[in-house]
Amino acid sequence: MFEVLTVEETLKIIEGAVKPTKAEQEEIELIHALGRITGEDIISTEIVPHFSRSTMDGFAVRAKDTFGASEGMPAFLEVKGEVLMGRSPSGDISSGETMKISTGGMLPESADGVLMLEHAEELDEKMIAAYRPVAPGENVILQGEDLKEGEIILKKNHYLRPQDLGALAAAGVMKVKVNKVPRVAVISTGDELVSPEEVPLPGQIRDVNSYALATAIQQAGAHPLLYGIVKDEAPVLMEAIERARKEASLILISGGSSVGTRDVTAKVIDELGDPGVLVHGISIRPGKPTIFGMVESTPVFGLSGNPVSALVTFDLFVVPVIIKLRGMNPQDIIYPKTSAKISRNIPSSQGREDYIRVTLETDEKGETWAVPVFGKSGLITTLVEARGMVRIAQNKEGIEKGEEVEVALYS
Amino acid sequence: MFEVLTVEETLKIIEGAVKPTKAEQEEIELIHALGRITGEDIISTEIVPHFSRSTMDGFAVRAKDTFGASEGMPAFLEVKGEVLMGRSPSGDISSGETMKISTGGMLPESADGVLMLEHAEELDEKMIAAYRPVAPGENVILQGEDLKEGEIILKKNHYLRPQDLGALAAAGVMKVKVNKVPRVAVISTGDELVSPEEVPLPGQIRDVNSYALATAIQQAGAHPLLYGIVKDEAPVLMEAIERARKEASLILISGGSSVGTRDVTAKVIDELGDPGVLVHGISIRPGKPTIFGMVESTPVFGLSGNPVSALVTFDLFVVPVIIKLRGMNPQDIIYPKTSAKISRNIPSSQGREDYIRVTLETDEKGETWAVPVFGKSGLITTLVEARGMVRIAQNKEGIEKGEEVEVALYS
Repeated sequence: MFEVLTVEETLKIIEGAVKPTKAEQEEIELIHALGRITGEDIISTEIVPHFSRSTMDGFAVRAKDTFGASEGMPAFLEVKGEVLMGRSPSGDISSGETMKISTGGMLPESADGVLMLEHAEELDEKMIAAYRPVAPGENVILQGEDLKEGEIILKKNHYLRPQDLGALAAAGVMKVKVNKVPRVAVISTGDELVSPEEVPLPGQIRDVNSYALATAIQQAGAHPLLYGIVKDEAPVLMEAIERARKEASLILISGGSSVGTRDVTAKVIDELGDPGVLVHGISIRPGKPTIFGMVESTPVFGLSGNPVSALVTFDLFVVPVIIKLRGMNPQDIIYPKTSAKISRNIPSSQGREDYIRVTLETDEKGETWAVPVFGKSGLITTLVEARGMVRIAQNKEGIEKGEEVEVALYS
Repeated sequence: MFEVLTVEETLKIIEGAVKPTKAEQEEIELIHALGRITGEDIISTEIVPHFSRSTMDGFAVRAKDTFGASEGMPAFLEVKGEVLMGRSPSGDISSGETMKISTGGMLPESADGVLMLEHAEELDEKMIAAYRPVAPGENVILQGEDLKEGEIILKKNHYLRPQDLGALAAAGVMKVKVNKVPRVAVISTGDELVSPEEVPLPGQIRDVNSYALATAIQQAGAHPLLYGIVKDEAPVLMEAIERARKEASLILISGGSSVGTRDVTAKVIDELGDPGVLVHGISIRPGKPTIFGMVESTPVFGLSGNPVSALVTFDLFVVPVIIKLRGMNPQDIIYPKTSAKISRNIPSSQGREDYIRVTLETDEKGETWAVPVFGKSGLITTLVEARGMVRIAQNKEGIEKGEEVEVALYS
């Protein structure tokens, strides 16, 4: 028989069992790459910018021509025309000369700084007074300052954000090699389940978890494959898992809530391949009957039929596996959270982690309170009301009204 | 001439100018509805669950038959068979009787509670001893406890998360009316710009902002329409805006960094329709030259050509407009953030909000430090390195090394 494990023990077993996969890769257009994970180091084949540019509207100068300039003793410079946007300067400047330049304009070859417009006075069309000195490199982005040729723009396993795609566009990289999106199979089992399209008879309920889990899988950056409802019998479930192993890199078995269904699930995982079931029962509420195992290299979870329990354990145990299968740096993951005061006493048993659904309310003092959502753990409407979860650690006997808590927010 | 406004003044002007639109709606399948916004109150036409169910494995009882039961003085109950999963019970129970039941099983009509398996002893096939009393309703979800007929499952303008889609599936709602995704036009302007596919000549640079903004728009839950690069001349830009107004509900003009381009942008917004330009210059770094205006009912932003500046001002000023256009409850938005200590002194001018790019590092004591990313504000590679932004409020002259700061995280 299996002993009930702690959350921490379970996470350690999952971490050890699921190997970082060599994710398959594909090349996609930049515009479709938001949220994807780079499949290789991406190297710049260009210099960015490929010329020194002004970052201000003003006058391109040779810095040393302005040294010592002040309000009382300006430096006088001869204006040799203007740099047009998008063009090479019409010529170069010599000592004592300047060219007018706009933000983004290309510096004449001998210029090494830009005097801001507000520090210059245009005396006539041919002459300005500079009232401040300009340091070499001031108000200029130098050629190659953003990217050098051969420099890594983004490392392998980088999560692609808008600014990353901007950086790739800057270097003219229009396609990017990314890891394929992992596919996650959802198999529902339990003799009481009917598909959500059907009208349940007495004793039957709709398979809620397929939709909740499928969209949670999307949210975690993977692609759900729905296998529908499979009968609560070992040979049938076995066949479904075998099929899913060919098509997906992670399998969730969900929906059966009775002890009979859980036993069948565990038995089938054990029979299909080593090492089989590794976790059967976790000291967490909700989520105690969760099963985790490996059928050879495929991780398989048996999640509770209770949708609240299934979603809590999905966030806690399944998401880290999806992150690994995506080939993502775990430190690139952001779990949104906020802190609040709990609005009432909540008891909890030592030796068990409790997850309490809460809404957030702000009082007239501007303080945020986490207000527990009442209702039995099996009610999905309690999850609809909730904005997040408060965790009561295993070694705590509860939390007291007014205590500061961290709320893990639903995104 | 326009005076430079504070961030707060700007947000107030935007909030006042952009009216909550009556977003167009469409009906879509549940499986495609993640992250969408409900277009109406969604009412349950059913009772959920439509029968009283057990939440434990055990025995269905009439609670009063167990009152007073204890280890020393158990109540003896006659077993009238077992409730099969997914079926109506084969009969009812009378006083002194019980039926075996699994989690999720349907309660016999006269049962009002469930005795947990571990509190019962099966003396023989026909008789159990109950060692604990069961309260009425204990270990049971009553008929209609999750949803009643006519009850609102989700309110209008609700952001759809996995659990919400699960709740809809529970009530048999397979399609959901949602607000259409707003379309946001991106027009690039500036004579120095070439399309990212092209190789820039001296003085030219690639249009980085189109890709960065398009994907930032996707991330904010809207649909980008790219209009490419438009010449820096009033009639051409005017025509592009007029076209965009027909196809999009928000327009971003981006890319031109010179004062000339900015002036043309402002002039065109003013000429196309009332009220025209409302903000021209904000006391923020980066992002000072930002323009905001309304061409009749269409909000138009002029964002800096500097991609760092464009993305900072996008998050701050454009995202709230997109949220409004999506028809979303602003309080449903989560801006992920974390707190950290700043790793060095950062000066700032009073009267200006500064946004500092930072990475996050954890030291050996487990403390998180926000480490400013060095480099000039125009370098997109500084944004690639950054994990988030630290804001220095307008009334502060800087932050001191070791000070606790809030880091707005890039998602």
